[in-house]
Amino acid sequence: MVHVRTSVTRPDPKLIDGLAAFSSATIHEAQGRKGALSHRIKPVDDAMSFCGPAITVLSHPGDNIMVQVAISYAEAGDVIIVNAGQLEQSGSFGDVLATAASSKGVAAFVTDSGVRDSADLRELGFPVFSGSVCIEGTVKETLGLVNHTLSVGGQVVEPGDILRGDADGIVLVKPDEAEEVIRLCQEREDHEAQLRDRHRAQEGSVIELHGLLEKLEAKGLTVEA
Amino acid sequence: MVHVRTSVTRPDPKLIDGLAAFSSATIHEAQGRKGALSHRIKPVDDAMSFCGPAITVLSHPGDNIMVQVAISYAEAGDVIIVNAGQLEQSGSFGDVLATAASSKGVAAFVTDSGVRDSADLRELGFPVFSGSVCIEGTVKETLGLVNHTLSVGGQVVEPGDILRGDADGIVLVKPDEAEEVIRLCQEREDHEAQLRDRHRAQEGSVIELHGLLEKLEAKGLTVEA
Amino acid sequence: MVHVRTSVTRPDPKLIDGLAAFSSATIHEAQGRKGALSHRIKPVDDAMSFCGPAITVLSHPGDNIMVQVAISYAEAGDVIIVNAGQLEQSGSFGDVLATAASSKGVAAFVTDSGVRDSADLRELGFPVFSGSVCIEGTVKETLGLVNHTLSVGGQVVEPGDILRGDADGIVLVKPDEAEEVIRLCQEREDHEAQLRDRHRAQEGSVIELHGLLEKLEAKGLTVEA
Amino acid sequence: MVHVRTSVTRPDPKLIDGLAAFSSATIHEAQGRKGALSHRIKPVDDAMSFCGPAITVLSHPGDNIMVQVAISYAEAGDVIIVNAGQLEQSGSFGDVLATAASSKGVAAFVTDSGVRDSADLRELGFPVFSGSVCIEGTVKETLGLVNHTLSVGGQVVEPGDILRGDADGIVLVKPDEAEEVIRLCQEREDHEAQLRDRHRAQEGSVIELHGLLEKLEAKGLTVEA
Amino acid sequence: MVHVRTSVTRPDPKLIDGLAAFSSATIHEAQGRKGALSHRIKPVDDAMSFCGPAITVLSHPGDNIMVQVAISYAEAGDVIIVNAGQLEQSGSFGDVLATAASSKGVAAFVTDSGVRDSADLRELGFPVFSGSVCIEGTVKETLGLVNHTLSVGGQVVEPGDILRGDADGIVLVKPDEAEEVIRLCQEREDHEAQLRDRHRAQEGSVIELHGLLEKLEAKGLTVEA
Amino acid sequence: MVHVRTSVTRPDPKLIDGLAAFSSATIHEAQGRKGALSHRIKPVDDAMSFCGPAITVLSHPGDNIMVQVAISYAEAGDVIIVNAGQLEQSGSFGDVLATAASSKGVAAFVTDSGVRDSADLRELGFPVFSGSVCIEGTVKETLGLVNHTLSVGGQVVEPGDILRGDADGIVLVKPDEAEEVIRLCQEREDHEAQLRDRHRAQEGSVIELHGLLEKLEAKGLTVEA
Repeated sequence: MVHVRTSVTRPDPKLIDGLAAFSSATIHEAQGRKGALSHRIKPVDDAMSFCGPAITVLSHPGDNIMVQVAISYAEAGDVIIVNAGQLEQSGSFGDVLATAASSKGVAAFVTDSGVRDSADLRELGFPVFSGSVCIEGTVKETLGLVNHTLSVGGQVVEPGDILRGDADGIVLVKPDEAEEVIRLCQEREDHEAQLRDRHRAQEGSVIELHGLLEKLEAKGLTVEA
Repeated sequence: MVHVRTSVTRPDPKLIDGLAAFSSATIHEAQGRKGALSHRIKPVDDAMSFCGPAITVLSHPGDNIMVQVAISYAEAGDVIIVNAGQLEQSGSFGDVLATAASSKGVAAFVTDSGVRDSADLRELGFPVFSGSVCIEGTVKETLGLVNHTLSVGGQVVEPGDILRGDADGIVLVKPDEAEEVIRLCQEREDHEAQLRDRHRAQEGSVIELHGLLEKLEAKGLTVEA
Repeated sequence: MVHVRTSVTRPDPKLIDGLAAFSSATIHEAQGRKGALSHRIKPVDDAMSFCGPAITVLSHPGDNIMVQVAISYAEAGDVIIVNAGQLEQSGSFGDVLATAASSKGVAAFVTDSGVRDSADLRELGFPVFSGSVCIEGTVKETLGLVNHTLSVGGQVVEPGDILRGDADGIVLVKPDEAEEVIRLCQEREDHEAQLRDRHRAQEGSVIELHGLLEKLEAKGLTVEA
Repeated sequence: MVHVRTSVTRPDPKLIDGLAAFSSATIHEAQGRKGALSHRIKPVDDAMSFCGPAITVLSHPGDNIMVQVAISYAEAGDVIIVNAGQLEQSGSFGDVLATAASSKGVAAFVTDSGVRDSADLRELGFPVFSGSVCIEGTVKETLGLVNHTLSVGGQVVEPGDILRGDADGIVLVKPDEAEEVIRLCQEREDHEAQLRDRHRAQEGSVIELHGLLEKLEAKGLTVEA
Repeated sequence: MVHVRTSVTRPDPKLIDGLAAFSSATIHEAQGRKGALSHRIKPVDDAMSFCGPAITVLSHPGDNIMVQVAISYAEAGDVIIVNAGQLEQSGSFGDVLATAASSKGVAAFVTDSGVRDSADLRELGFPVFSGSVCIEGTVKETLGLVNHTLSVGGQVVEPGDILRGDADGIVLVKPDEAEEVIRLCQEREDHEAQLRDRHRAQEGSVIELHGLLEKLEAKGLTVEA
Repeated sequence: MVHVRTSVTRPDPKLIDGLAAFSSATIHEAQGRKGALSHRIKPVDDAMSFCGPAITVLSHPGDNIMVQVAISYAEAGDVIIVNAGQLEQSGSFGDVLATAASSKGVAAFVTDSGVRDSADLRELGFPVFSGSVCIEGTVKETLGLVNHTLSVGGQVVEPGDILRGDADGIVLVKPDEAEEVIRLCQEREDHEAQLRDRHRAQEGSVIELHGLLEKLEAKGLTVEA
């Protein structure tokens, strides 16, 4: 069995830049309400955000040896994403590894387990998304996998898949759908900007401006004064 | 069956203003330790707070069509409060609806489910209280109820009930008890201000200043030097 | 049965000061990955931190009478730590008790249950660590214990044990191990500072700089280009 | 304030008997998918079931004095249902109270908190539905409410509402809708019996026999061989 | 986009039979401690077990239209496994669908959400594994996927992967590893049978019979009389 | 540091036998409502029960090497109780270790983590209490502690403390209080037997027979016909 696959097909940087211009929620909606990772995985600081291709890691819970391997093989712009069994009482990533990753230009670190040194991570500004913050360190004993297809946060993640994260959470975009998703995001954003303007101008009620009047009638909505 | 009741008996604005002067914790205590909604429902930003009459919404989990209906019928000062089945992996309210609600002068949005666009909500400053933050959008398919008596956060909420929320959570006050509750809140606050002064001056121990010495003795507290 | 033991053997202040110079995560790691309390117990504000000897309290869930007793017997520098049955829907400590504790120079308050008046606590700057924030106040009816050996956050806590808390959580140090732990913390911090410098200078990969190459080979790591 | 209301409008026993002939799931579906209490409230033994009018109890968490009051005022056939703050680490009802309730002909006991003496309860065969089983007993100190409108398991429960429980959970039926619900249950059951027969005879696929072919086509389902 | 893929490469029935002879725990251990689905997915009855190839379903939470599609395309021996967003307050499968599936010879139904009609399912004896039991039925509105690669219970599941479930939970085996896994299971079972015999005969302590003496010594275990 | 302490002061077998005659709930109540472990720790089968002195084990989560050590040093009648960090996705004890423990006459195995081979454990009839059932096996890499004072299920457990478990959960009794607790249990049981008889005979209401009339009046209970 091969533990580490070093060759990853990374998407065209233009796709990364294109998606980075939109929020995770907009992308999720634009691509047909799919690709959202569990809401339990959140940034250590609300101001953190990222966009980049996935380097996937399967870690034994409470063991970060494969995280160290993954950082060693990662490239600038990569997002390291880890399935560590959703173990919350564990801090598998802290300021030393964040310094290492950040120095290489890694874009972000994501885990379904916990991290520590949260104050340092905030100061460093390196985007870290996790299921918890916990001081308990990890052992370095059990091998796992790097760049195999994995399940993280309820989504199947393949190496090279594009991940976009911000204060609301993380969404996954398939590289071959990215161009179309960017187009749909722009459309959606233009439409929403217009809607917000119309709401601010109070041009009509929500159900009028959102075109729901007919649908509600068809469904038999009854209103009593 | 009537889905939407548009006529709500809103309490005298003086009662709203009177309660808004006190924290949710003070009100809860003053009215005899009742009316607290589940602590899981928290503001998107600690600085958010509100006070106003309830517009109640029963939503199908993962569907926000009735939220849109409710905003359309809400008035300035209203608090829209939603039972959406405590679904956490759902973002049923975001920046467009917040803009719509805020433009109408709606006081706040409360849900036992999730919301999204949290960065925008913080920037907008519109008070949003929720059980989670999640990027997953909702469908608009299933009818529910507006302004029926509902259960939210473990409390029975009737349309027109007064809701007061801040960083600690949300408390419900019955309109016909509000005047008395305001009086009791002021009493409690005066008493607590005095207590805090006496603690700062170190006039005595907590059990002395809080009048617990006799009670503790009566209960048989034993102390060993 | 004795409810309250007033005599606690407090560790040498030099040990407290020595440990206060290190983060909870560093201490946890330095003392052999032990002593971490549950990650669910977190500060009300990320900027809060403390270090001091434990005053232990066993409270009936939803009752804070023994917290009031404990504050009355606490001394400057003490950390009051409470087992209140992990009841989250409860706010057993607020601004009045924080003022009382803070005026006496108490170092911090820790509970596995909830607290309230969180905005006031943040303003006061008194370190409060809890399992939740909740507006529901407590009764003052049932006696418990002060300064008995207790279980809090999955750790056995004896009165006088040293507790160190910060944004990552809380770690417990046995007083008779503190001196050695301080030494190990300094060693670890020096080593990590050096590692961070080497990472910043990109002197090698993580697995090289962390000395994992041989270990990984011994474990049979396979890498595919 | 009145704590205990003794006069409850109980529904016609024919409605109780009528609903008791159907499962909780069938009733929930037949009345338009509403009235389900939280799935966390389950019988102590899968064989337990009940149907009867609600006697509502608001209990302080960890205190069962109002449960004792409620049993004292209950009548044969009643279902006692308690909001005790969803406290799981609590056993607020055991074999003595079960014997008392059962001797009076009470139909069942339901709580969102815990119960104990589960082996005795199973032997007694008295239907008990709870959020947990826990040995921790309760105090008898704080007054609450009997036969006020309450929130239990996410539903608003009024005294006299009909509750039907079995291995799947509990559903609430409004008395004035019960007759129609019974009719709809029978219709649904007849229809399902027929469907099961047709499935056993393999007369067609699920989507054929359930009439979904057209709907799926309209929604644009694509199938690849 | 293709919603339903009807062609699935099913593994040789000999592999299914071979694995069915071993428990889920033995298989998990034998294949190197991998492939375990979340322990939250459990049988409705402890006596239920199954082994068969996966038919994967991605369902909108609270919607079972794709489950109905999947059963329609399933074959005898198949195991239908559903990602429905881990929604616990939902009963997406009951006696009618169980009758349909069972009549076709489907081997089992697995979901990360809830099921209902549990008493009927037990009587029917059709193996159903779920994250909860709940009476709330589902709508049939939103399309999803059948036989795409999915994440269920923290594992990546591909159509045709072998699933083995029993009272302990579910394990996934890759078809191309099944033959070797069967061999390793037999080895392990023989070894364990021998170990159990030696324990019954009390031939030595656990650490002696399990060959741990040297390892413990190497790790520096200290024992105090 | 000493990992394993082999000398444990076991209580007089008469105390074990005395306590074994009462349920965990009766003991908990009789000794003043203390000593209950978390309700999350439950028997694998409702019929399982035990009473015996504690052999305490601190295990690294996901590692059972110290469990194997503890069984090796345990004696007939002992109860092995493990803090394994409350890791639910782990099966740290199965049929081989149960055979070993049972062959030595060990009374029971208790863990705050998971176990596996549940069907075999039920067949074997060896009492196993756990926080979960999970197929995931454990490694044998990290040393821990045997017979040190530990926290398990929210209680401080010392080696030799008496543990009594049944379908409701587990209670801890201090050996030097056991004789008095047995006396109080018998008193309580006699009193409850009498109460149950009087309830069966319907000699009065619950609040009459439980002597609550005066207390309720003193607290100001108001009743409305």
